[in-house]
Amino acid sequence: MNTIGIGILGAGTVGGTLIRRLVGDHAAISAKTGLDLEVRRIAVREPGKARPFELPGDRIVADPWAVVDDDTVDLVVELMGGRDPAGDLVLAAVEAGKPVVTANKELIAARGPELIAAAERSGVPLLFEAAVGGGIPIIRPISETLAGEQIESVKGIVNGTTNFILTRMAEEGSGFAEALAEAQALGYAEADPTADVEGGDAAAKAAILASLAFGTWVGVDDVHREGIVDITPADMAFAAEFGYVIKLLAIAERLDTGVTARVHPAMIPNAHPLASIRGATNAIFVTGPSIDELLFAGPGAGGEPTATAVLGDVIDAAREHLAHAQVAPRIRFSPGDLIDFSTVSTKWYVRLEVEDRPGVLAQVAGAFGDAGVSIKSVWQEGRGDEATLLIITHRAVEAAQRAAVDAVAELAPVERVAAVIRVESDEP
Amino acid sequence: MNTIGIGILGAGTVGGTLIRRLVGDHAAISAKTGLDLEVRRIAVREPGKARPFELPGDRIVADPWAVVDDDTVDLVVELMGGRDPAGDLVLAAVEAGKPVVTANKELIAARGPELIAAAERSGVPLLFEAAVGGGIPIIRPISETLAGEQIESVKGIVNGTTNFILTRMAEEGSGFAEALAEAQALGYAEADPTADVEGGDAAAKAAILASLAFGTWVGVDDVHREGIVDITPADMAFAAEFGYVIKLLAIAERLDTGVTARVHPAMIPNAHPLASIRGATNAIFVTGPSIDELLFAGPGAGGEPTATAVLGDVIDAAREHLAHAQVAPRIRFSPGDLIDFSTVSTKWYVRLEVEDRPGVLAQVAGAFGDAGVSIKSVWQEGRGDEATLLIITHRAVEAAQRAAVDAVAELAPVERVAAVIRVESDEP
Repeated sequence: MNTIGIGILGAGTVGGTLIRRLVGDHAAISAKTGLDLEVRRIAVREPGKARPFELPGDRIVADPWAVVDDDTVDLVVELMGGRDPAGDLVLAAVEAGKPVVTANKELIAARGPELIAAAERSGVPLLFEAAVGGGIPIIRPISETLAGEQIESVKGIVNGTTNFILTRMAEEGSGFAEALAEAQALGYAEADPTADVEGGDAAAKAAILASLAFGTWVGVDDVHREGIVDITPADMAFAAEFGYVIKLLAIAERLDTGVTARVHPAMIPNAHPLASIRGATNAIFVTGPSIDELLFAGPGAGGEPTATAVLGDVIDAAREHLAHAQVAPRIRFSPGDLIDFSTVSTKWYVRLEVEDRPGVLAQVAGAFGDAGVSIKSVWQEGRGDEATLLIITHRAVEAAQRAAVDAVAELAPVERVAAVIRVESDEP
Repeated sequence: MNTIGIGILGAGTVGGTLIRRLVGDHAAISAKTGLDLEVRRIAVREPGKARPFELPGDRIVADPWAVVDDDTVDLVVELMGGRDPAGDLVLAAVEAGKPVVTANKELIAARGPELIAAAERSGVPLLFEAAVGGGIPIIRPISETLAGEQIESVKGIVNGTTNFILTRMAEEGSGFAEALAEAQALGYAEADPTADVEGGDAAAKAAILASLAFGTWVGVDDVHREGIVDITPADMAFAAEFGYVIKLLAIAERLDTGVTARVHPAMIPNAHPLASIRGATNAIFVTGPSIDELLFAGPGAGGEPTATAVLGDVIDAAREHLAHAQVAPRIRFSPGDLIDFSTVSTKWYVRLEVEDRPGVLAQVAGAFGDAGVSIKSVWQEGRGDEATLLIITHRAVEAAQRAAVDAVAELAPVERVAAVIRVESDEP
């Protein structure tokens, strides 16, 4: 039997589930893969705590280094999360010639090139399927099956918390705070929801997707990021009126000038495959000249789906390790042109509160035109002395859109720029 | 540079596209993967014919054995299709220690265990991502990412020709013959459409999906198969009236009693993720206790998408080959219980032409009841002396359903059993 000793850092939701399955499904996994995956050592914050798995007590330790340095541990699974000390532990493991599997998007987005290079030097795999899309197979399809494709774009709903909130807002008319509270009550949002609602989680995933899709490393700090805290029921309703739905998208694109990654709320047409992705479900939409359009959808988080993705990586890494293979890394990164977000073209939806008097629209349209932004459509809704002006522009670079909106905000009859949301659609 | 000599059997739609990209995208592939993939020899039926790629003429031969036996060929790509002589060529290549990549579903479904075992003995990969789902990554996700999942079912629209025909019938009200002619005119169906419309192509894919999902080999002859030639506009219209759409599904299921695979037209509820898959698009829906539901959708055929999947496999196989790795196979097959289709439970839609007189429904309902099949709903549409009776049953085993319909057909007031279509939905 091909035995592999496994060490696991962290036994929270994902780690606990993984260990329960490695122990409980041992025979089934072994029959299907020919591998004897033996959990040899686990590091947890509180070794005495009750766990959803049964293992001899001496296998559970508090010091993660005792796992990485254990000679009986052949393969390390890092599920602690965060950059420190996870990064140094992963680095030490691969430098010691141990394959590593991790679900840590933050770590990969921050120190990916360094860790991947170290794994390459040691000739061991460093796999992170679970870092993006939870249980959805996406890292492997993009970096392996599509290795020969000149991928053009990856657009994803990669954060279940925000998609749950936006779905409730769209379907129930709830405000952001109300929908967030509901998400928290149901366990879809953390007590501190910052990383989700401000787009940090999605930005780390966007960085990883862009890097793998284009073979050019994109760091998390290279990702333009906006969250969903300013989305209002009014904009949800207007979006619906125009045939759109608002989603938080992670977008990686290869343009003529280089590659770019960004996270922001976007209006997408109802007919877009991502428009119908509801609740905590994740989905990733990949386009390229040969594959045209691919859609991957499924559970983007949760202990069970994420543990499944980790387990798939563990099996794959164990296979390579047993072959004593110095297998080349799945992907190489070349220096590439990262474009500044201000030069990326998008369409904008702008909601203005204005005085309801003749000539306002002409002034507003003039300000957009002066900035080089052409307007696709305008709706006006009067309500006494005031009116709401809804504008959707044609495609223009961010810098021009921003200048236009700044100029509009200075116009005397404009009381307030109430909302700005990008519109993602294939029309010009 | 890591150079791999590639030999290709067949330069038709997929092969020609693959060669054009291996030659034309050589620099891009090399930058992304670190591999120098060199096309060394190609076997084609007519070596003199014009091709969509430029290669020295002496690399193109008529004898496929001259490719497999060529010492400068390190890796063989089989794109001839069919069982013979492709099977013996693939076998010889892996026995000579050469990794093989193939898109040949018919061959894998027929001789999979033998070829996979031979590849394992030689310690070389035998990859076939393109055999199912064309450009959709599905083989690798199922056999690698989901290796640790106890997959419950795989349901797919895996034949673009029939989905195109059924979509036209549903949306335009066309008859089968008319929609088929349109598919042929547009290049979506072959001059001889038998393999597509009678379900043979989908059955080979169902066999492969079932085998990989469950780790129990399911041969193509184990797959119960029905095509779409008997689907009528009338049933399309009735399906729409009841909130269903008719699709040709490839279904692999793990039941308590064993595993089963089948291909047949099925009514699925409009809200099912597969219901909205239109035209030549393919989609595969995978369920399991941990992943819940995963959907993969994209182009299921065509030279470009299929060549992308082949190219991904070539890159992966080249990586392993260069590592001189005796890597264990991705999946092992255990003997498992294949259940006889007559014992599988499904729901049936039955359309009867009956005499419109009192007591008919009682007689029909009695016959179903006697066979142990309970009826979920009945609609009756009178038209003069005759009436149409539409019945949807609850779940019952195939043998009982068949017995019920046979008994109904014998009833005096029943003129004709006009249609029988299974209903796939989660309701009991």
